[in-house]
Amino acid sequence: MDDKLMLMIPGPTPVPEGALLALSKHPIGHRSGDFFKIMAEVTENLKWLHQTKNDVLILTVSGTGAMEAGIINFLSRGEKVLCGSNGKFGERWVEVATAYGLEVDTVTAEWGQPLDPEQFRAKLEADTNKEIKAVIITHSETSTGVINDLEAINRHVKAHGALMIADAVTSLGAFNLPIDEWGIDVVASGSQKGYMIPPGLGFVAVSDKAWEAYKTANLPRYYLDLGLYSKSAKKNTNPFTPPVNLFFALQVTLQMMKKEGLENIFARHQRLTKVTREAVKAMGLSLFAADECASPAITAVVPPDGLDAEDIRAIVKKKFDIVLAGGQDHLKGKIFRIGHLGFVSDRDILTAIASLEAALQELGYQGFTSGAGVAAAARVLAES
Amino acid sequence: MDDKLMLMIPGPTPVPEGALLALSKHPIGHRSGDFFKIMAEVTENLKWLHQTKNDVLILTVSGTGAMEAGIINFLSRGEKVLCGSNGKFGERWVEVATAYGLEVDTVTAEWGQPLDPEQFRAKLEADTNKEIKAVIITHSETSTGVINDLEAINRHVKAHGALMIADAVTSLGAFNLPIDEWGIDVVASGSQKGYMIPPGLGFVAVSDKAWEAYKTANLPRYYLDLGLYSKSAKKNTNPFTPPVNLFFALQVTLQMMKKEGLENIFARHQRLTKVTREAVKAMGLSLFAADECASPAITAVVPPDGLDAEDIRAIVKKKFDIVLAGGQDHLKGKIFRIGHLGFVSDRDILTAIASLEAALQELGYQGFTSGAGVAAAARVLAES
Repeated sequence: MDDKLMLMIPGPTPVPEGALLALSKHPIGHRSGDFFKIMAEVTENLKWLHQTKNDVLILTVSGTGAMEAGIINFLSRGEKVLCGSNGKFGERWVEVATAYGLEVDTVTAEWGQPLDPEQFRAKLEADTNKEIKAVIITHSETSTGVINDLEAINRHVKAHGALMIADAVTSLGAFNLPIDEWGIDVVASGSQKGYMIPPGLGFVAVSDKAWEAYKTANLPRYYLDLGLYSKSAKKNTNPFTPPVNLFFALQVTLQMMKKEGLENIFARHQRLTKVTREAVKAMGLSLFAADECASPAITAVVPPDGLDAEDIRAIVKKKFDIVLAGGQDHLKGKIFRIGHLGFVSDRDILTAIASLEAALQELGYQGFTSGAGVAAAARVLAES
Repeated sequence: MDDKLMLMIPGPTPVPEGALLALSKHPIGHRSGDFFKIMAEVTENLKWLHQTKNDVLILTVSGTGAMEAGIINFLSRGEKVLCGSNGKFGERWVEVATAYGLEVDTVTAEWGQPLDPEQFRAKLEADTNKEIKAVIITHSETSTGVINDLEAINRHVKAHGALMIADAVTSLGAFNLPIDEWGIDVVASGSQKGYMIPPGLGFVAVSDKAWEAYKTANLPRYYLDLGLYSKSAKKNTNPFTPPVNLFFALQVTLQMMKKEGLENIFARHQRLTKVTREAVKAMGLSLFAADECASPAITAVVPPDGLDAEDIRAIVKKKFDIVLAGGQDHLKGKIFRIGHLGFVSDRDILTAIASLEAALQELGYQGFTSGAGVAAAARVLAES
């Protein structure tokens, strides 16, 4: 049905009406007092969301641009980094580091498995010459629905002394990530995720220790030079023309997030994750990631034998106007992914489960008692 | 007065209602058939606007990001480039090239003066070893309201064989720039200018000759790697999550531009420029740039002795809710700039002139016959 689209993908995520209306306001000048006020408010609220006193800088980029900035500002050509790689985004940061001539070592895990903190410990302890300058990992691996144990990995990084650089694109604003308490040096994220606004803004939180490294880091950069953003941010402005309409929307959603409160936001994402996982199990489908490493942003589902993930997605889209995400790269057709990140309510997830059940029924799937998914979802919601 | 703001700055420029409403639509997935259709239409219309069969790639960046991509994808460390520098943006491309370890030679002119094509000819003819790999210039220098003679400079570049890389951020969609006819290799621009939408998208047109250079160019890049965008564009998609709402708006304004037609768009900008300049002269103020090199996007004005440009801007803003641009860097307070780029009509420019007259009167300026500015503007409009 026209105009009925419902996004249940890991991004873009649904956008609240207040933010959509803010997007449609006439732009204002970015070198104006009115815009400086927005910058000041938004920056303060971003620090609240990031649980940090560190700089949180705003760039006109997608999440990849933010993460690239988070890497290249703090390292020099030929320096060694240790990258965690257990999915499409982990692999991407290896590509970025390689493109800039860094020496890359990796800790890997199968797609769908979490990174093992012990492997980081072993590599870091063996690095007695302190050649590893930074450890780079993806917190919530969007491609597989796995959350990596950033807290544990970071403890080993702290013991070693390297910088901890984290891609929090689908964890920021969904999962507890207390930057100052844990001491994470660089955290990158993007607007079309937990922030509840369309794509177009990237965010990078930078610790004092990372700024120390910046002073001698020599990888070439200009548009992604975070020093320029930091200098401008002190005057509540930007080095390059910012997407002012996205700032209008961000102002609205950050206010909404503050009103909901961090604990409630994290609890809601936990609840949506549990609802999804229990419903999927009740329908006799398999979960791609184990409960212990379930991302709060996205749940990857393995269809039963004989069913193609793309067929399920097609029916859910055609009949119910719900967009689920497919598998990426070698997982295409093998999994589908249900996004429950950002502006997603209990009603939304119940709707998605009910629609998935109806689609499975239409495909002639016999492996479940019709209604079992919604029943399981309702049970979790009643208990929460 | 609240909600009465009128932007007469070189960007962000005013946005038509249809584009504002498109911005406020719910995002759609960027890996969907619906988005692929938008990408296909928008890309085709961008080629029309650029008067080219070359690739025109779309990045989530400001104009600086687009221009940086236009430089770093086609050069290798240590290679020599010749940059034109006669304003803030010309200076910026020198900074970018230097940041990436390129060897930079420059042709300079005072701010407010155009670059001299003869100086390019002399340097290029002297370069018999063909060490200069690219010539980089700003077409319309936003900081001073000067348009450089890209066509003439490019003829010398063509004779030499280097790549011609042009910043067309405030000329694209305002001034005739027939890329294929002239043979310009790389042209960068940004959405908040002639495109009539808010900031957030950058565009880079790339010739076959530039793609040849890309094959061996070794400056590090990933997010700004145009090869990734070109590969994705062939499938009507993007390597990284694009700002889908800005695409909705771009779709609308490109349709509007096609309806108006290139010749009409260029004629309108010529007319607005002439109206502004004749009115400024009639008010006894000075023009910062000569008629022969007047940018179609922006007119820089020197206030009469005893008046500060910032005071004039302040009154125009406070009394009439019109935002004019100030001078940048050493020109702050010495000039103000009237933007007439993008979605600007005859009525808008007449309004700006009338408001400027009223402000000058309020400041006690005696150097003109009250009403002379509007009279001159009306005369030009009647003759056009």
